[in-house]
Amino acid sequence: MEQKSGAKKVLIVGGGFAGLNAAKALGKREDLVVTIIDQRNHHLFQPLLYQVASAGLSPADIASPIRSIFSRKDHVNVVLDRVQGVRLAERAVELADGKTLSYDYLVLACGATHSYFGHEEWEEHAPGLKTLEQATEIRRRILLAFEEAEKESLPTRKKMLQTFVVVGGGPTGVELAGAIGEMSRYTLKRDFRSIDPSRTRIFLIEAGPRILPSFSARLSRRATQDLERLGVSVWTDSPVTRIEARGVQVGEDFLEAGCVLWAAGVKPSPLNATLGVPLDRQGRVMVREDLSLASHPEVFVLGDQAHSLDAKSQKPLPGLAPVAIQQGRHVARVIVADLHGKARRSFKYIDKGQMATIGRKKAVAESAGLEFTGFTAWMMWLFVHVYYLIGFKNRLFVMLQWMWSYLTFSRGARLIVSKDWRTFKNP
Amino acid sequence: MEQKSGAKKVLIVGGGFAGLNAAKALGKREDLVVTIIDQRNHHLFQPLLYQVASAGLSPADIASPIRSIFSRKDHVNVVLDRVQGVRLAERAVELADGKTLSYDYLVLACGATHSYFGHEEWEEHAPGLKTLEQATEIRRRILLAFEEAEKESLPTRKKMLQTFVVVGGGPTGVELAGAIGEMSRYTLKRDFRSIDPSRTRIFLIEAGPRILPSFSARLSRRATQDLERLGVSVWTDSPVTRIEARGVQVGEDFLEAGCVLWAAGVKPSPLNATLGVPLDRQGRVMVREDLSLASHPEVFVLGDQAHSLDAKSQKPLPGLAPVAIQQGRHVARVIVADLHGKARRSFKYIDKGQMATIGRKKAVAESAGLEFTGFTAWMMWLFVHVYYLIGFKNRLFVMLQWMWSYLTFSRGARLIVSKDWRTFKNP
Repeated sequence: MEQKSGAKKVLIVGGGFAGLNAAKALGKREDLVVTIIDQRNHHLFQPLLYQVASAGLSPADIASPIRSIFSRKDHVNVVLDRVQGVRLAERAVELADGKTLSYDYLVLACGATHSYFGHEEWEEHAPGLKTLEQATEIRRRILLAFEEAEKESLPTRKKMLQTFVVVGGGPTGVELAGAIGEMSRYTLKRDFRSIDPSRTRIFLIEAGPRILPSFSARLSRRATQDLERLGVSVWTDSPVTRIEARGVQVGEDFLEAGCVLWAAGVKPSPLNATLGVPLDRQGRVMVREDLSLASHPEVFVLGDQAHSLDAKSQKPLPGLAPVAIQQGRHVARVIVADLHGKARRSFKYIDKGQMATIGRKKAVAESAGLEFTGFTAWMMWLFVHVYYLIGFKNRLFVMLQWMWSYLTFSRGARLIVSKDWRTFKNP
Repeated sequence: MEQKSGAKKVLIVGGGFAGLNAAKALGKREDLVVTIIDQRNHHLFQPLLYQVASAGLSPADIASPIRSIFSRKDHVNVVLDRVQGVRLAERAVELADGKTLSYDYLVLACGATHSYFGHEEWEEHAPGLKTLEQATEIRRRILLAFEEAEKESLPTRKKMLQTFVVVGGGPTGVELAGAIGEMSRYTLKRDFRSIDPSRTRIFLIEAGPRILPSFSARLSRRATQDLERLGVSVWTDSPVTRIEARGVQVGEDFLEAGCVLWAAGVKPSPLNATLGVPLDRQGRVMVREDLSLASHPEVFVLGDQAHSLDAKSQKPLPGLAPVAIQQGRHVARVIVADLHGKARRSFKYIDKGQMATIGRKKAVAESAGLEFTGFTAWMMWLFVHVYYLIGFKNRLFVMLQWMWSYLTFSRGARLIVSKDWRTFKNP
């Protein structure tokens, strides 16, 4: 890595929405040496991951190599590695390959993983949806359940194999359940001979009183209706007490199922526990209004890894892509202000709204105090996601892809996908 | 499975080019019950697999769910299972899940796997390219080698990590070596800071006197020149005697390499050895001129699994997609002739030519006694492959994909990909 004498070193850990946006904004400053570290070679557009899990999109459609995002920024370095520890006092980061990188500014944006609330043994039977490997594993399980049902001659087992349970009624759970409903009603309808895919039973299980709790009660009711039309049974006030190979225990009921998916909880990066700084009850790092650590103003923690308060409501900000994007850009502004000797500003989240899609032609959305449902909300959802995705090199027909490859010398599918969906390991 | 009384049962094992084309042709006959069995849920367009391995295309771009190909043919059943044995005397096939399927006609088209000529331990260090899992594993290894080289500070190890060895100078080996050359010269050129990808060393190792031995000596020379321009060193008369984690032993030379790929040999399906019928030295089933077994005229063996003679030259036909496609269609005609009480015809291969591409804008092609090179051959290659691929539901931009999904109720990426690239297991 080249380094200008005196150039400040900014180390960014994590190439998700927060880290990527911080790196993009800081990459405009030629007087900085920016290094972005990720254990993956790609940025993942998480909001569409459920579409990979439900076979609508290919992994490469929603992933983009971090290296190629910064290929024209010579002062931005991209390192494929895992951060094992941070030595705050020495201003250095330890990598899994044994090396140490020093910094003037550190931006931690490592995100979150699934939380099974102390029941890690459930993961095997109910994978969550955070990585491309998990998405293709879920896709495999969904498609295999239909294949097994087609071959099964015993009616009770056939029924079991055609039963899907999604645990967790937030946006991911709603979108997954809706996509399975849509798949069974439309996509697979004519493909099987001994089963009728449209008789698939799908259960969306939520521990709280309603699904999509961050939305209004009206939108939550509307989403429930839309889901029910796709054959999804929505069970609220239904905490899951056990998950095993054959199904899920929900209160008194045992739901036998061919496929169980987990969308119920997340926990922040395990790195947090090693930092020796104050954490909230969920393990997120408590940050100041400018997103830095009270003890180390040169260290920032963003996105799902941090507990940061909404300037207006004084409630913790939710784990959403727009929060991470805005925080990434904010940290870049704070660092630049520091370099110019100016005062740091507080982070203020601009809430543009939220949305969740429910299969074909249906969605719910909230924005600027207005609520949208049905086709209108779905078109909004489509537009917003295409708009944000369009920055990526996405798919053409193979032929268009080739023409494009020919003209731009680029390749679209540079992903490193591990063999095992549960633990990502480079070599 | 529904069955008309008296309808003849045709069982097709394998959804590759041979089996798929037999099933398509027989699917037109409503008086037959056709069942196609494959351990994968998709047909794979093998000629473009090297593009998945070299990150040009996504797995879903070259795969198509067998079930959806036959969704409108109610008398065609698709079974996801592995065939474990054939009871020729009883006219029945044993499946891995314990069931038995009976047949009036059996079409075996199980293809081939890699042969390491008795050195199965080489596979770990030098994966071959037959499945999507192997393709994504090769992609992972190629991309990781560059990432590791970027991080490495020791010059000798850096050089080693930037050395690629492809064993086998047939079309697959040539196409893989060319694609790595192209990737290092163009795609990755600007992405790294501490290495220069265009200084990548690529060795194409062939045991015989020249690469592309099925082409003319002139085209073989031309391909060598084109490869050398992409930085590929072509070593002929160079049998590999050992492959280990650090590299490849070629005669007196040990080539230290960060990534070794195998494209040197194939062997037919292990099912052949269990049939109790005459095999050739490579283990392929000897078939008659109509592609049936001499002892069982109701059983046909096609594609890479069979040893069938070219009607003109009396030499065994090569393991190429056009041979498999034509054989699949031929067998359908033979079965229909049987049903009409007509005489069976012999299979006659119509050789339309062969082609191999060498990176960007370069290819070699032979057709109707004419030879083509460079840009012309490359355009032919492009046209032929797009033409054959166009029958599949291929990729659009995500947005076009969505519009198409919306209009047709289809999904593009319905693949079941296993966790482990070496052994494909459906649970």
